[in-house]
Amino acid sequence: MKIIDKTEFAKANIFGIGELNTAYAKYFIGNSFLKPLTDPANTSLFLANVTFEPGCRNNWHIHHASKGGGQILLCTAGSGWYQELGKQAVSLQPGSVIVIPAEVKHWHGAKADSWFSHIAIEVPGENLHNEWCEPVSEQEYQQLK
Amino acid sequence: MKIIDKTEFAKANIFGIGELNTAYAKYFIGNSFLKPLTDPANTSLFLANVTFEPGCRNNWHIHHASKGGGQILLCTAGSGWYQELGKQAVSLQPGSVIVIPAEVKHWHGAKADSWFSHIAIEVPGENLHNEWCEPVSEQEYQQLK
Repeated sequence: MKIIDKTEFAKANIFGIGELNTAYAKYFIGNSFLKPLTDPANTSLFLANVTFEPGCRNNWHIHHASKGGGQILLCTAGSGWYQELGKQAVSLQPGSVIVIPAEVKHWHGAKADSWFSHIAIEVPGENLHNEWCEPVSEQEYQQLK
Repeated sequence: MKIIDKTEFAKANIFGIGELNTAYAKYFIGNSFLKPLTDPANTSLFLANVTFEPGCRNNWHIHHASKGGGQILLCTAGSGWYQELGKQAVSLQPGSVIVIPAEVKHWHGAKADSWFSHIAIEVPGENLHNEWCEPVSEQEYQQLK
């Protein structure tokens, strides 16, 4: 469900907005926010709720792994997009689950007219590292319906 | 937020109710429902949305592991309880995150007067197996406030 108002969205964003995601800002267009949900001291799985302001999306990127790896997205509030290279973008709603395989170039983010949040889960594997590529252009993004 | 009406709860339960959880029914009091969110063919992480009818809870149990393991609960709708042996029960709401360590005896489930759902994530580890113990007695359960 699209939600453009920040206060209204905050009520739907049950896992919380956290802090401005400054560490990864160079790989995003627009502002994103990060709320870690697990502490590496307590568990080997890293989960965070990622919130994108309307129009915000990350650059094309690849989760590299020699075994396992990739990421799982659990969409929790608002409305967004997920796109793999060479495929149609997928519309994301609360309850959408996306399994991103390792080695697949992709991006995700909010719709132009809605806030959006997903929980991101890093899937364990071997020799994990992320490759950040070019931004999603305004032309590509604005034509999504 | 407590929700006693099934139809109203279904609107809040964004990851879906799935099927009656018959395979594990012997370890539960009341009816629970299971909606797998990942397919073992696509990813090594198993996630499922578990829904408990009002009053439903699982037996005391332990996630054994020689390394890693345990479970993470992401509470998505309604209201429930999580309790570790020897500790006070924790009230669960949408947005609550529980990291259950391996080897800790515990139970979880709905409140007496509310439906409840959480996503359960199996944390990878070595020599994983679950030990199911005694039910949570009516006396223990009904005194929770």
